[in-house]
Amino acid sequence: MDTETILPQLVQRNEHKILLVVIDGLGGLPHSETGLTELETAHIPNLDALAHGAACGLMMPVSAGITPGSGPAHLGLFGYDPIKYQIGRGILECLGIGLAVGKDDLAIRGNFATMDAERVVTDRRAGRISTEENRRLVELIQSKVGEVSGVRVTVKTVKEHRLAVLLSGPSLSPAVTENDPQKEGEKLRPIEALSPEAGTTARVLTEFLQRVEEVLKPVQSRANTLLLRGFSRFPEIPTFEKRYLLRAACVATYPMYKGLARLVGMDILPTGDGLDDQLETVRQAYQNYDFFYLHVKKTDAMGEDGNFSGKVQALEQIDSKIAAVREMGFEVVVITGDHSTPAVLHSHSWHPVPFMMLSRYIIPDHVNRFTERECAEGMLGVFHSTEAMPLMLACSLRLQKFGA
Amino acid sequence: MDTETILPQLVQRNEHKILLVVIDGLGGLPHSETGLTELETAHIPNLDALAHGAACGLMMPVSAGITPGSGPAHLGLFGYDPIKYQIGRGILECLGIGLAVGKDDLAIRGNFATMDAERVVTDRRAGRISTEENRRLVELIQSKVGEVSGVRVTVKTVKEHRLAVLLSGPSLSPAVTENDPQKEGEKLRPIEALSPEAGTTARVLTEFLQRVEEVLKPVQSRANTLLLRGFSRFPEIPTFEKRYLLRAACVATYPMYKGLARLVGMDILPTGDGLDDQLETVRQAYQNYDFFYLHVKKTDAMGEDGNFSGKVQALEQIDSKIAAVREMGFEVVVITGDHSTPAVLHSHSWHPVPFMMLSRYIIPDHVNRFTERECAEGMLGVFHSTEAMPLMLACSLRLQKFGA
Repeated sequence: MDTETILPQLVQRNEHKILLVVIDGLGGLPHSETGLTELETAHIPNLDALAHGAACGLMMPVSAGITPGSGPAHLGLFGYDPIKYQIGRGILECLGIGLAVGKDDLAIRGNFATMDAERVVTDRRAGRISTEENRRLVELIQSKVGEVSGVRVTVKTVKEHRLAVLLSGPSLSPAVTENDPQKEGEKLRPIEALSPEAGTTARVLTEFLQRVEEVLKPVQSRANTLLLRGFSRFPEIPTFEKRYLLRAACVATYPMYKGLARLVGMDILPTGDGLDDQLETVRQAYQNYDFFYLHVKKTDAMGEDGNFSGKVQALEQIDSKIAAVREMGFEVVVITGDHSTPAVLHSHSWHPVPFMMLSRYIIPDHVNRFTERECAEGMLGVFHSTEAMPLMLACSLRLQKFGA
Repeated sequence: MDTETILPQLVQRNEHKILLVVIDGLGGLPHSETGLTELETAHIPNLDALAHGAACGLMMPVSAGITPGSGPAHLGLFGYDPIKYQIGRGILECLGIGLAVGKDDLAIRGNFATMDAERVVTDRRAGRISTEENRRLVELIQSKVGEVSGVRVTVKTVKEHRLAVLLSGPSLSPAVTENDPQKEGEKLRPIEALSPEAGTTARVLTEFLQRVEEVLKPVQSRANTLLLRGFSRFPEIPTFEKRYLLRAACVATYPMYKGLARLVGMDILPTGDGLDDQLETVRQAYQNYDFFYLHVKKTDAMGEDGNFSGKVQALEQIDSKIAAVREMGFEVVVITGDHSTPAVLHSHSWHPVPFMMLSRYIIPDHVNRFTERECAEGMLGVFHSTEAMPLMLACSLRLQKFGA
């Protein structure tokens, strides 16, 4: 059913407030020795108690078998079909390091690389230079090539050989070819316009690369050129205000998540590093917003590291502070993840994520533990992440009746 | 998956019979004191026993978070995507008061209203005149303006200031503007054609309004004009006969549900007021149809009134009579609701509805009570209402294999 088409005629404003807590990479897989997942291993009495009074389920981030990156995972959770609304890699790279991307900017992912005298790429990662060396080179480039033909250039270190480039100027287009030959032993490709209106962009990028190579030439570094790809502009996504009539705020500590929240029009609230600080930020801004998105990162990082016990500890830390959400006055509280990050996989995964919803207007089900196996028996069943927002809107009485 | 597109090649006729019992507004929410829903509070041993031998689940009327009106809720249950097949307000208003709408008719919702000498609307509801006064005015209008330029006009009282208008004639179009300014203090708007073929309709409606105003002028009433809106025609819906090869009959007591059944081509069987009478009607017509839709209203009415114990009693009354469905010879019996109407919300809601299916070809699950929480653990899971008809067809062995 295409709920998206009927939402605009149904949604209305009111005073009820919604809190969405995203525990990144929440779901896991059983440990080979114990047969228990991270959530089943952790001592999380507060999350269990909240689940006891909640309607629970398993939320599928995109669709069966699909492992999402943070971008699609969050878009789904925010109610936007992640297959319909795809965000360019360049945009995500910029958001990930805290570069604010404007409506007219062109965002690009880049590598430092090594080429020989014939412009043949001999190392696509310039020997994986250190992040420190990357920073020195980026500083140099930024100081010498801050502007090209009237287009403002922002260059930022990501990590090791990776960097982000942001062009700001009128009429920029992502319809240009990449200079990356994808294979070593092949020549750098020219950047060419794929459509007439991309001509300026192709010329600006070509000049930018020439000037970067001039700047790098005298430097002692394996990095003597850049590979540019993932050209993308800010996607046309209706904001929370427009789509849901919600004044929304983001309380996150990592740039990627602030960037994703900004993408859908949330205000980004300054906050401290711990969950305590984040909850205090929510408390203080409570009156000013209808919807709060609170993001907790540590579980995902531990999962990515394959650190099972570290993820268990991160869950227990969260648990020790989470009970506070009860007393904050929210009409609707959802606690879930954006996707699973099982430590045994060292990565994001496709497994649906435990989900709990607290509201006056749910039926608390038989789920007494906030785990994958228990949530699978919850009243919400297994559902798509895009259904989470309509459910939150409904439980805050924001959706009028459809039809007579 | 779009089952709709493959059904026509799969469906076949046979002698098996299907009974669909719709207990309107069946689902509920927990009472604040007991923590139990209406179904959990009611003593319903017969429904529980039926659920024990059935495959159960929770049926979502439209999609997550969406509260349906009776129209979309029934269309979904009848197997028609309620977002694709939207029924105009005018049609529903006419159906609700038992006005049979023909294929070429134009159905309209109206208000009696008060305007001043400058045609400025001073009261959009004419001071909420009584239903009795409404009836007197409608009779007067009907007797004086039964026809306009060859178009037959039928006017009927709905309630207080509300009425329904049905135009019957060739080439009528809903593509005309409303005369309702929506706000008081603004002038009545002219009714104008939104497309060339709607010119006649706009002229007919304009003349109709002039003549109604002439008729109302000498009358002592705050009602001196009509606001017309929700212009709609009979939607193009394939009938049960065409779509499912089912001869279908409706056994309902309220006009709205008879109207909805007529919309999909069901025969409307005359019946008495109680469930006993309705079951007897089914028994007598048993040989003549493949599919019976039996509608019970009282639960919804009690829910809308916020009458928790009234809804509990209504459920117990239904329970005392429902066991009869066992001995009637049906191959497939489904008992469910069109949507939830929790007494605590005083209204329809978005919550999925308990659903049970009796058939030789289901696996009876562990569900022993016909409640929201138990059905959530049934074998059918949480599913969309549009899946109910294909399930009923399958269990009556009416769907051939798809593909080789």
